[in-house]
Amino acid sequence: MNKIPVAILGATGIVGQRFIELLADHPWFEISALVGSQRSVGKTFREACNWVIAGDPPSYLLDMQVLSLEDELPCKIAFSALPTQVAKEIEAKLAYQGIAVCSNASAYRQHPNVPVLIPEVNGDHIALIEKQKEACGWDGYLLTSPNCTTTNVVMPIAPINQIYKINKLAVVSLQAVSGAGHPGIPFLDIYDNVIPFIGGEEEKVENESRLLLGSLQGLEQKPSEMVISAQTNRVNVSHGHTVCLSIGFEKAPSIEEAIQIMKEHKGPEIAQNLPSSPNGNVIIVRDEDNRPQPRRDRDTDKGMICTVGRVRSCSILDIKMVSVAHNAIRGAAGGSVLNAEMLVKAGYIK
Amino acid sequence: MNKIPVAILGATGIVGQRFIELLADHPWFEISALVGSQRSVGKTFREACNWVIAGDPPSYLLDMQVLSLEDELPCKIAFSALPTQVAKEIEAKLAYQGIAVCSNASAYRQHPNVPVLIPEVNGDHIALIEKQKEACGWDGYLLTSPNCTTTNVVMPIAPINQIYKINKLAVVSLQAVSGAGHPGIPFLDIYDNVIPFIGGEEEKVENESRLLLGSLQGLEQKPSEMVISAQTNRVNVSHGHTVCLSIGFEKAPSIEEAIQIMKEHKGPEIAQNLPSSPNGNVIIVRDEDNRPQPRRDRDTDKGMICTVGRVRSCSILDIKMVSVAHNAIRGAAGGSVLNAEMLVKAGYIK
Amino acid sequence: MNKIPVAILGATGIVGQRFIELLADHPWFEISALVGSQRSVGKTFREACNWVIAGDPPSYLLDMQVLSLEDELPCKIAFSALPTQVAKEIEAKLAYQGIAVCSNASAYRQHPNVPVLIPEVNGDHIALIEKQKEACGWDGYLLTSPNCTTTNVVMPIAPINQIYKINKLAVVSLQAVSGAGHPGIPFLDIYDNVIPFIGGEEEKVENESRLLLGSLQGLEQKPSEMVISAQTNRVNVSHGHTVCLSIGFEKAPSIEEAIQIMKEHKGPEIAQNLPSSPNGNVIIVRDEDNRPQPRRDRDTDKGMICTVGRVRSCSILDIKMVSVAHNAIRGAAGGSVLNAEMLVKAGYIK
Amino acid sequence: MNKIPVAILGATGIVGQRFIELLADHPWFEISALVGSQRSVGKTFREACNWVIAGDPPSYLLDMQVLSLEDELPCKIAFSALPTQVAKEIEAKLAYQGIAVCSNASAYRQHPNVPVLIPEVNGDHIALIEKQKEACGWDGYLLTSPNCTTTNVVMPIAPINQIYKINKLAVVSLQAVSGAGHPGIPFLDIYDNVIPFIGGEEEKVENESRLLLGSLQGLEQKPSEMVISAQTNRVNVSHGHTVCLSIGFEKAPSIEEAIQIMKEHKGPEIAQNLPSSPNGNVIIVRDEDNRPQPRRDRDTDKGMICTVGRVRSCSILDIKMVSVAHNAIRGAAGGSVLNAEMLVKAGYIK
Repeated sequence: MNKIPVAILGATGIVGQRFIELLADHPWFEISALVGSQRSVGKTFREACNWVIAGDPPSYLLDMQVLSLEDELPCKIAFSALPTQVAKEIEAKLAYQGIAVCSNASAYRQHPNVPVLIPEVNGDHIALIEKQKEACGWDGYLLTSPNCTTTNVVMPIAPINQIYKINKLAVVSLQAVSGAGHPGIPFLDIYDNVIPFIGGEEEKVENESRLLLGSLQGLEQKPSEMVISAQTNRVNVSHGHTVCLSIGFEKAPSIEEAIQIMKEHKGPEIAQNLPSSPNGNVIIVRDEDNRPQPRRDRDTDKGMICTVGRVRSCSILDIKMVSVAHNAIRGAAGGSVLNAEMLVKAGYIK
Repeated sequence: MNKIPVAILGATGIVGQRFIELLADHPWFEISALVGSQRSVGKTFREACNWVIAGDPPSYLLDMQVLSLEDELPCKIAFSALPTQVAKEIEAKLAYQGIAVCSNASAYRQHPNVPVLIPEVNGDHIALIEKQKEACGWDGYLLTSPNCTTTNVVMPIAPINQIYKINKLAVVSLQAVSGAGHPGIPFLDIYDNVIPFIGGEEEKVENESRLLLGSLQGLEQKPSEMVISAQTNRVNVSHGHTVCLSIGFEKAPSIEEAIQIMKEHKGPEIAQNLPSSPNGNVIIVRDEDNRPQPRRDRDTDKGMICTVGRVRSCSILDIKMVSVAHNAIRGAAGGSVLNAEMLVKAGYIK
Repeated sequence: MNKIPVAILGATGIVGQRFIELLADHPWFEISALVGSQRSVGKTFREACNWVIAGDPPSYLLDMQVLSLEDELPCKIAFSALPTQVAKEIEAKLAYQGIAVCSNASAYRQHPNVPVLIPEVNGDHIALIEKQKEACGWDGYLLTSPNCTTTNVVMPIAPINQIYKINKLAVVSLQAVSGAGHPGIPFLDIYDNVIPFIGGEEEKVENESRLLLGSLQGLEQKPSEMVISAQTNRVNVSHGHTVCLSIGFEKAPSIEEAIQIMKEHKGPEIAQNLPSSPNGNVIIVRDEDNRPQPRRDRDTDKGMICTVGRVRSCSILDIKMVSVAHNAIRGAAGGSVLNAEMLVKAGYIK
Repeated sequence: MNKIPVAILGATGIVGQRFIELLADHPWFEISALVGSQRSVGKTFREACNWVIAGDPPSYLLDMQVLSLEDELPCKIAFSALPTQVAKEIEAKLAYQGIAVCSNASAYRQHPNVPVLIPEVNGDHIALIEKQKEACGWDGYLLTSPNCTTTNVVMPIAPINQIYKINKLAVVSLQAVSGAGHPGIPFLDIYDNVIPFIGGEEEKVENESRLLLGSLQGLEQKPSEMVISAQTNRVNVSHGHTVCLSIGFEKAPSIEEAIQIMKEHKGPEIAQNLPSSPNGNVIIVRDEDNRPQPRRDRDTDKGMICTVGRVRSCSILDIKMVSVAHNAIRGAAGGSVLNAEMLVKAGYIK
């Protein structure tokens, strides 16, 4: 079987590097283009990239030339790790040209016809693509993965919400530094410290959670009407976001039921058994008092699962819990790769 | 004027060392006894103590012999940094012997006749002492400072609560490692990590906040009936606890009013202008989006103030804010020293 | 083929856990016994062990009962992660009973008939075993891996020393916290800090380096007579020791020659192509100015290689370089496993 | 007495902020001008500065307007925290205009008529000023403080070198992140890591140490002819450089003598009892095995001393020791302020 050629947009940045790491040896996809900013164009990847994640880049990419966003890209899928402003212009252009754009950028997450997808949560929203193509007049299409923190918030509670409707949600996050990219946060600002603010993050968590926990009526996205309040903090952790959740229901499940629902959750059939799917549970519920922890739990099952713990009752809303996921894998590049795999399984890409 | 002789119980531990730091050059008190566990008794302080805070111990204490908890202590005030179990027995004994015990331990915080005090919050609860002496048959008496995290929670909201009654309170803490003492938390457990659990802490925050925000009716403590939900986390910060608060009121003030009340708060007259009082505001409200931060704000005004920021409305309860205070100073040794100073000002100790 | 049954002594400690990680799925060995201290004996491994490395212990070990050091051990090889004092007594006893003891403890490293082995460095010293069995009257035998820091020092310079004799060696180490075990170093001692002292470490580096760079004459160990000076420091890095080396030769090679020798080094045939051998070079020499770095290089090739960089001339001795290796894998458990694999390949164990 | 007006060049950067901290309440100097880059000119200091050290800027400076390097500066002394390239042009211009420039930049440290000064080490080199004014045709003059790492290296060994001539010096540094300024090093590069390279640093340490340990013959600087080899590393410490020294002598003192000389060192009379001088010893020699440590020793005596420990014999050269000093205070801004104070005491500025 021939692999599907894919491009990585923003390939030299920290999310671009994660895309490379996840796609370097992918069973369905092969990297056919690395696309960078003006500073990098024309250089080899070796020259252009300051590799900041562990180890070294795949050796077969070292001499690949970095392409420009203006170039025609030899690919069927484009994974986008572009900055918002650039994404706005380029992603639409590529979709227009017939490319399937799997974006990690926030530019189109609030667009009414662009799905924000976590396959196991709302994989069925993929159906929006047809409407999108028509409405926008594109040959290709565009889908996005949510903000990294939203991923942690939504993954564990979505299956509960399908049975016991959530009407209130309080989120306090303890987010890893890699969420701000590289160079990102100076050591001198975050060492021995907490920064109780991340620009735009609270709004993203609130808006995207409502979308992901909403429904599709006809081909219309109906966001959840739950009330959400988010407080986002940066802590000196490298990778792995932690969120403390407090959840209110119209009619609450028992703690045991909530745990059971999370443990058994598999997501829709279309989202299962993809190459990047977790091998075991999508949500791991731990019993120990002192888990989940970002350093100990972020890498479980290739960094593609969400680990939950301390599920207990809340005296203000109904249930409290803590959720950890790898912000740069499940919450960013890995989420977009999973979205693309679902596109293939659903027959959108051949 | 002769200084008042004071003993430090648990003098070699990390809170004991803070007591020493704060009392070494105190205008009203002089350290007359250092008391340690069996391991230390009979040694000089130099031999017994592994000094873990910055700099060196005061040189005049280096050759002082560490006394035993069995010894008769040459002091009027005993500052206690004892472990709970030991505190239970010893603190009552010393109070019985006529000593004023200012304790940082949790052993007696839930005792109906023992006040948990933050001078600027509930300094008037000092009146419980008379009832306590009578009820317990003690010549001395016992007062406590609250758990370090409770301090951050209660200081900024107490003055608002006096005008606008709080009925719900959600707390998520990001606590410093020094709260667990020394050796405390191994580097290998907390580096690049968050630990979402601190044994007993959530209950302490909930119970002590209700006491501190409660009232004294006659000589009866009436805890606040507000509903509190606490989630406590350890982060890799050395000193300075951060708490994210969400506050619900019977009738809520505006954000501006809440800020104004905090800025103008001075506490009762008996709590003002003590040697360890902050020189400026008790509560500092910062405008910047990204403050307070533990490393940048914990040491302001000798570590005795509470810094608040991000005061804004909450979609679930009414008002959200972030509060930082120095857990080892304001939240522990410094709080107890301030309590003792208030005792002197109130005429309990001569 | 039946796998060889192996025991892990000190299985609940941090090096013991590394042994478990490396042996859990080993092609030649199977874990037949987990041995712990009095505190753990009789418990299941699940109950006895506070797993501190990433992820979880292999599930098939969770219900294995922890054995006592007094028990008869159902194994042919015992991997020892015992404290020195305990190792002294137990390792000799097990060797006497016919077991091959591969020790990570320091107790016998200075014994004249016990080899300190890094297979690629002095694999031929394995021949000492015959003399040892005879001299000690043991049915089994005992071999050790060196101190973790010595590993970094010796691996890169040993092949150069075989051609260009080293006569002076200055070592300054920047060592990871995990070298001190768990709980090991308190966060409050090492955060934002360097500790310029590690008890006994400088002597170990000096003595063991001389042994490893020495020769075997007949069956007599002849330590190198080089002059060594070591300064050892603890830095707040979790894993991966860094050493700055300055090397003097009787007659020095050029920088290019030294690099070439390191790059081409494979070690003796008996040490090659073992299950835990690196897949590529034993020593990786990097060109970049700012490498090696412990976090970026420690995990290369399963943590079993040594990465060198900044090879340049020294104005006082002859050549300077920086060397990084994973202290807990190559420098501890992984080194001992490699030693055992060499025993098997050499026919000592069937 | 009227205070002497001083300007701070590069006032918004991290060294500029340290100058402000040290000069805000200085008995002899008053800040009359804050000078910044184009980005800051015309703004108030409040608007222009991202204050990154603890606490807040002095309130009386918040509304001072940031001046341009082109402006005429209302000052007698200019403290320079400029980048090298800018310093090259501006510092000469200011000296030409009659201003005494006390620079922390490296631009002129190798100029034959510009002294690199540590008052207690080579305060007498101040005499070069006369020659400099004549040779350069300046009304003012220019003096520099050395690179922050050089400070640690030279301070403890200079007094020994005056009696026992040093002929070889091996330096391995473990340097703090703040030495690279702000934003400086990204958290993602240095967390859990060591970077074994700092551009240009090894050359600076070698060249400047030879100057500082050299002599003035007539008005000619004669650098020491000692052989120096430096290896510089970045560690994840915020402030406080640590250096491991190995020192060779023509004829070596005993360890006890070396310690005695360091303990008794006061520096030339002209360097003593200045406002920023340490209150006690210039060099503190500690007995404990595990000191000095950057976090515990950097702030001693206002951050203006150098703390030494582990003084012991070296098997390759003669004596080894470890030295710690505050890179941003003694090694940067504080050193330049002390230089300026010496100028005043010596009568150069009235």
